[in-house]
Amino acid sequence: MTLRSTLYDLKLRHTFTISRSSRDISPVVLLEIEHDGIVGYGEAAPSRRYGESVETVQQFLAGLNLGQFDDPFQLESILDSVQGSAEGNYSAKAAVDIALHDWIGGKMNLPLWKYWGLDKNKTPISSFTIGIDTPEVIERKVREAEEYPILKVKLGGENDQEIIRAIRKVTKKTLRVDANEGWKVRETAVEKIKWLEQEGVEFVEQPMPATDLAGTAWVRERVNLPLVADENSLRLHDVPKLQGVFDGINIKLMKCTGLREAMQMVHTARACGLKIMVGCMIETSVAISAAAQLTPLIDYADLDGAALTTNDPFDGVTLVEGRLVLSDRPGIGVVKRDPVRL
Amino acid sequence: MTLRSTLYDLKLRHTFTISRSSRDISPVVLLEIEHDGIVGYGEAAPSRRYGESVETVQQFLAGLNLGQFDDPFQLESILDSVQGSAEGNYSAKAAVDIALHDWIGGKMNLPLWKYWGLDKNKTPISSFTIGIDTPEVIERKVREAEEYPILKVKLGGENDQEIIRAIRKVTKKTLRVDANEGWKVRETAVEKIKWLEQEGVEFVEQPMPATDLAGTAWVRERVNLPLVADENSLRLHDVPKLQGVFDGINIKLMKCTGLREAMQMVHTARACGLKIMVGCMIETSVAISAAAQLTPLIDYADLDGAALTTNDPFDGVTLVEGRLVLSDRPGIGVVKRDPVRL
Repeated sequence: MTLRSTLYDLKLRHTFTISRSSRDISPVVLLEIEHDGIVGYGEAAPSRRYGESVETVQQFLAGLNLGQFDDPFQLESILDSVQGSAEGNYSAKAAVDIALHDWIGGKMNLPLWKYWGLDKNKTPISSFTIGIDTPEVIERKVREAEEYPILKVKLGGENDQEIIRAIRKVTKKTLRVDANEGWKVRETAVEKIKWLEQEGVEFVEQPMPATDLAGTAWVRERVNLPLVADENSLRLHDVPKLQGVFDGINIKLMKCTGLREAMQMVHTARACGLKIMVGCMIETSVAISAAAQLTPLIDYADLDGAALTTNDPFDGVTLVEGRLVLSDRPGIGVVKRDPVRL
Repeated sequence: MTLRSTLYDLKLRHTFTISRSSRDISPVVLLEIEHDGIVGYGEAAPSRRYGESVETVQQFLAGLNLGQFDDPFQLESILDSVQGSAEGNYSAKAAVDIALHDWIGGKMNLPLWKYWGLDKNKTPISSFTIGIDTPEVIERKVREAEEYPILKVKLGGENDQEIIRAIRKVTKKTLRVDANEGWKVRETAVEKIKWLEQEGVEFVEQPMPATDLAGTAWVRERVNLPLVADENSLRLHDVPKLQGVFDGINIKLMKCTGLREAMQMVHTARACGLKIMVGCMIETSVAISAAAQLTPLIDYADLDGAALTTNDPFDGVTLVEGRLVLSDRPGIGVVKRDPVRL
């Protein structure tokens, strides 16, 4: 198996601001695994929240020793070895996981949704994200997002009310709110959520810091809107602990190290009675299309990462009036759009 | 898709007695699903414990309407439909699930263990079951089981001590004890388990009735041997509730409705920190070989169901000195041994 990786700077349509950070360019690492004449694509979109950068991704990939394996079908053993090679490095591990899954689908000439026995007509509607901004820019963004029936709104900053007011001036669409751990005090969180209950919001994602699970449980007892974990639902072993604290989890390939563990989290969340959302970082169609493969199994999708960019180098899953449309192409279903040298 | 089913009477090498029942013949229903020139095999081994018989299995299969589906790759939708067609009927549902998985493996020309990315060299050693009997017969059975390094002993009756004494006269092998809900009083269960701690026992399966989860938790606080759920771990949604009550779960295809849910239970059990055993009923090599496909993921196997019989109509997974040996044949890896007309 040959691994090749390259940096790629994704350009954002708008400066993207959440409660923690702001940026115009989002760098990712693209990966190719080649074996037996088949290429599998992978991608790492590293998050500073977890101490990752494109540099840590490339360092991790350079340090991998997969010489003992000679076939991507040894998926479980390869991924166990990748997991064991270093702590953390979630997104780099996800890149390898995605590329191996893509390779297997390519080898079998089956799209992953079919490989897993899923119905591609059961994909959910994805929300489209509106980052934190001035009321004027937010109004413009909401108008530009006309084709998307569900908006995801980033709150957790100083001007939460201003943002919701700006959006509600323009649209009555269903809103999903993501506070990204922005409300540090439980009473504030309760107050904010009770206000959002009147504003046509469907659920609230990660209202409180991930370290304050007790606070989140306290909040949940006092509000009606469902709470969805994100920074609290990184890996498989996090899921059972969230029963009674959250109503659902947001699974992201870049946190959970890829499709293998994402699928395990889906099943565990179902067993625990938790709703399931699949989300993303700012990513090319490689990682987005990979995550989209399992969406026939889930309740909510937030897979607009590629749609927020202007230079996605791949064609993959598309959003048609917000609905995820899976192709019949094998594996994760992507093809290179522009000549990208890896 | 064409479904064909037939009854088959499995003959037992020895009269098989557990704490609830005793028998010489174990009837099963064999199923074939044919589509596109490929046949997938399935099997139902119904349990009276759950109100099932070969008659209820055949009735369930006759009532299925899968006319809306035209491809076994629609696995998730087909199995959702099968689940919804009636309550219970675990083993009949498992027969359909196994046959569909076998068909997909056959179509792709991949054994399921490979389809799932597993390493066939990581299968565990299976225990071999010694049913409840007189000391003389038990001694003989233990001698006959010489090649198996781990024995599973059925207790929960009147003569538990007599049985262990008879076994320990002949062998020092690791024993696993299955009480099959036989100890009804918590103090009795504690006393029995504390005694078994001195007898070279690895763990105790289902000491108390499934209805007495509180009693089981009470017992667990007072003993050192790990407790493994069986009658308490029927389906996926049972698993999270067993945290803090049991140390592991026994997954059986005939309880959990097949491979799809078995895999979901494996991942959920891991997330919950529970050990995983895969067990069986008295079954042909069809159901045993199906269950064996996922054993590279688990801790303990008890897949001797076919080895306890004398007229298994299929060749499939074999036990070599107790270790499960998976073949490279596609799907569940079985071929008909005798001419069996379905």
